[in-house]
Amino acid sequence: MLKRCFENVKNKSPLIHNITNYVTVNDCANILLACGGSPIMADYSGEIEEIASICNGLNINIGTLNEGTMLSMILAGKKSNKCNNPVLLDPVGAGASALRTETAHRLLEEVKFSVIRGNISEIKTLIDGTGSTSGVDASIDDVVTEENLDETVSFAKSFSAKTGAVIVITGAIDIVADSEKAYVIRNGHPMMSKITGTGCMLSAMTTAFIAANPENIIEATKASVAAMGLCGELAFERLSERDGNSTYHNYLIDEVYNLTAEKLESGARYEVR
Amino acid sequence: MLKRCFENVKNKSPLIHNITNYVTVNDCANILLACGGSPIMADYSGEIEEIASICNGLNINIGTLNEGTMLSMILAGKKSNKCNNPVLLDPVGAGASALRTETAHRLLEEVKFSVIRGNISEIKTLIDGTGSTSGVDASIDDVVTEENLDETVSFAKSFSAKTGAVIVITGAIDIVADSEKAYVIRNGHPMMSKITGTGCMLSAMTTAFIAANPENIIEATKASVAAMGLCGELAFERLSERDGNSTYHNYLIDEVYNLTAEKLESGARYEVR
Amino acid sequence: MLKRCFENVKNKSPLIHNITNYVTVNDCANILLACGGSPIMADYSGEIEEIASICNGLNINIGTLNEGTMLSMILAGKKSNKCNNPVLLDPVGAGASALRTETAHRLLEEVKFSVIRGNISEIKTLIDGTGSTSGVDASIDDVVTEENLDETVSFAKSFSAKTGAVIVITGAIDIVADSEKAYVIRNGHPMMSKITGTGCMLSAMTTAFIAANPENIIEATKASVAAMGLCGELAFERLSERDGNSTYHNYLIDEVYNLTAEKLESGARYEVR
Repeated sequence: MLKRCFENVKNKSPLIHNITNYVTVNDCANILLACGGSPIMADYSGEIEEIASICNGLNINIGTLNEGTMLSMILAGKKSNKCNNPVLLDPVGAGASALRTETAHRLLEEVKFSVIRGNISEIKTLIDGTGSTSGVDASIDDVVTEENLDETVSFAKSFSAKTGAVIVITGAIDIVADSEKAYVIRNGHPMMSKITGTGCMLSAMTTAFIAANPENIIEATKASVAAMGLCGELAFERLSERDGNSTYHNYLIDEVYNLTAEKLESGARYEVR
Repeated sequence: MLKRCFENVKNKSPLIHNITNYVTVNDCANILLACGGSPIMADYSGEIEEIASICNGLNINIGTLNEGTMLSMILAGKKSNKCNNPVLLDPVGAGASALRTETAHRLLEEVKFSVIRGNISEIKTLIDGTGSTSGVDASIDDVVTEENLDETVSFAKSFSAKTGAVIVITGAIDIVADSEKAYVIRNGHPMMSKITGTGCMLSAMTTAFIAANPENIIEATKASVAAMGLCGELAFERLSERDGNSTYHNYLIDEVYNLTAEKLESGARYEVR
Repeated sequence: MLKRCFENVKNKSPLIHNITNYVTVNDCANILLACGGSPIMADYSGEIEEIASICNGLNINIGTLNEGTMLSMILAGKKSNKCNNPVLLDPVGAGASALRTETAHRLLEEVKFSVIRGNISEIKTLIDGTGSTSGVDASIDDVVTEENLDETVSFAKSFSAKTGAVIVITGAIDIVADSEKAYVIRNGHPMMSKITGTGCMLSAMTTAFIAANPENIIEATKASVAAMGLCGELAFERLSERDGNSTYHNYLIDEVYNLTAEKLESGARYEVR
């Protein structure tokens, strides 16, 4: 299944519409190209529905949002819903400001999402307002550990039941859950938190995976999350003594570019809960 | 002539005003520095004419356009015309939305361009509305081949006659045409399509080349297009097995940085049609 | 003191709010992560005060400013002042347009800055309007040399006396001055001017240094400026023959990532004037 999801991205080369922040937008475009997708970035209301309608999937990322892009997110989300294109929500910084939290809630009301991906603090903020905040990173108080893993998994499942979306919580341990089943994924490397945009890139790539596998959202999402984590491990292996986070950032995208279905199948580490 | 055009960029270090998208803006700045130019990015109407007037050339790229930047493009274009600074148009995504197509047409009406550079779908959209669209990439239906090359060259020549601009159509085969003469340039590498911003970077660099060679726009444009393609080839040669599109992206800019007039003269491959 | 300032950044990991241009924003985020800080980028007035209040320091950079971000700069600056968070001003392009010059002056009136960092043309523009302009780079007419160094140092000291901020003038020779004391720092490498964002990155990193050392702004600033220059030297040493400015850009951030207090103490070269 990992293999099929992966190969569908390479074969279909889905065109992904990204409404995203200006911090990591270049990385999102390059990781989409690396995985076999095709990116288009557009956030102006005057063209947003038309752009959404020519694409195969939509990635909504609320980092560096403003009045104009907030409107565009709603318009593009509704249009993508009408076109039956999968839509992903990345609630960057939900909990860090009332505006971001409210925007995420409003998007959840007006748009049907196939996937919601955030760190644990962002997702807890959306579920019940209990997320702490440390800017755009997860708070240490919220971090997912072996001790609270079962509880977090059931949180994710019930949020999936409520929203109809596959829920992705990323961190040292990643969770991908629908209302009935959860994958706990143990790929990744701590150095992924030392570059900006790992989460944004994962959201962009996951949108390509679900757009290429619309009949199987949870499996496609698992494949994307495992792929990113695995590439984070492989990128770290390549580092030499004087390399730092900038070279790591390049190697991470390089590994996605060079990933194969076989490497993904043998390297993915996950369990069902 | 390639040599002289190239050396004029290094010697004059033209200051280039870029009104461009937020996806590849950093790459545009770095490639301008790499080739010997100097970049300034500004898109707010409140300062746009003043910035345009201190620069030596203007690069207008309509990716991620919005109401504010659309106005700025017109203002800066007119001001640059008044200052006799060459202006380049990169109609990113013309054909992908009515707004982009109309904006490109309006710019063509209000501003005199020295160069218009796009992929074949974008240029066909501007010429007669026949371009297909695949987001911001050329559609497979439009691709320039040996079979339709002569037809495409005459399309480009007649569009040049109509607009007064040198027309650049980039893809596997590149065309640089004025109303009477066309260069068909065969430099480049397929991997250039696996990174975002190759076209945007070429537009930025070409603006530096024409600003440093205002008396010879077509030759300067040919030099820039050949230089970018050649650097794409050289960058590919450097790749090792685990390198992917991110490292390729770095090497492409590195090769522009290290390019010499001699390398350009011996590596450029083009014919006149 | 260099050691203590450096280690405070690593240990406290200050959360830095950046209102910055879209050209180098990704680099600013990655250099903050590299030095041990944590970045958040936000520029919309609807959330700007709330974001400022959860952070430990604010970096205001006026490159690619517009109506919306100009308001946000004032609001965030005032809020940070209320929170006793240090605020840094990077007057990118002051002198290149009346709007930028006036915006910088207005910010100086309404916000109390801990540090003001610019190139010599930008700082001279703010002091007495005598700065020349070459876009966002210092004009050759203004450049700091051994001959005009004493004069420039006393300019900086008197501007510090007037504003209450530590003044940083960067170029081939760097100056860090309060009203009584100036450090002349001789780290750095000419290749730093061949990549976009060196100044922006230094401003972002310096904000982390002062946020982690609020009781000792001038020493923290000196540490940051020396650190960036030293990393510029170390990055250059790593370059091989075919590397250019893009690889240099990566190595610069890598060196910041791998910098230690010991390397900084032994590599920093400065004198007091």
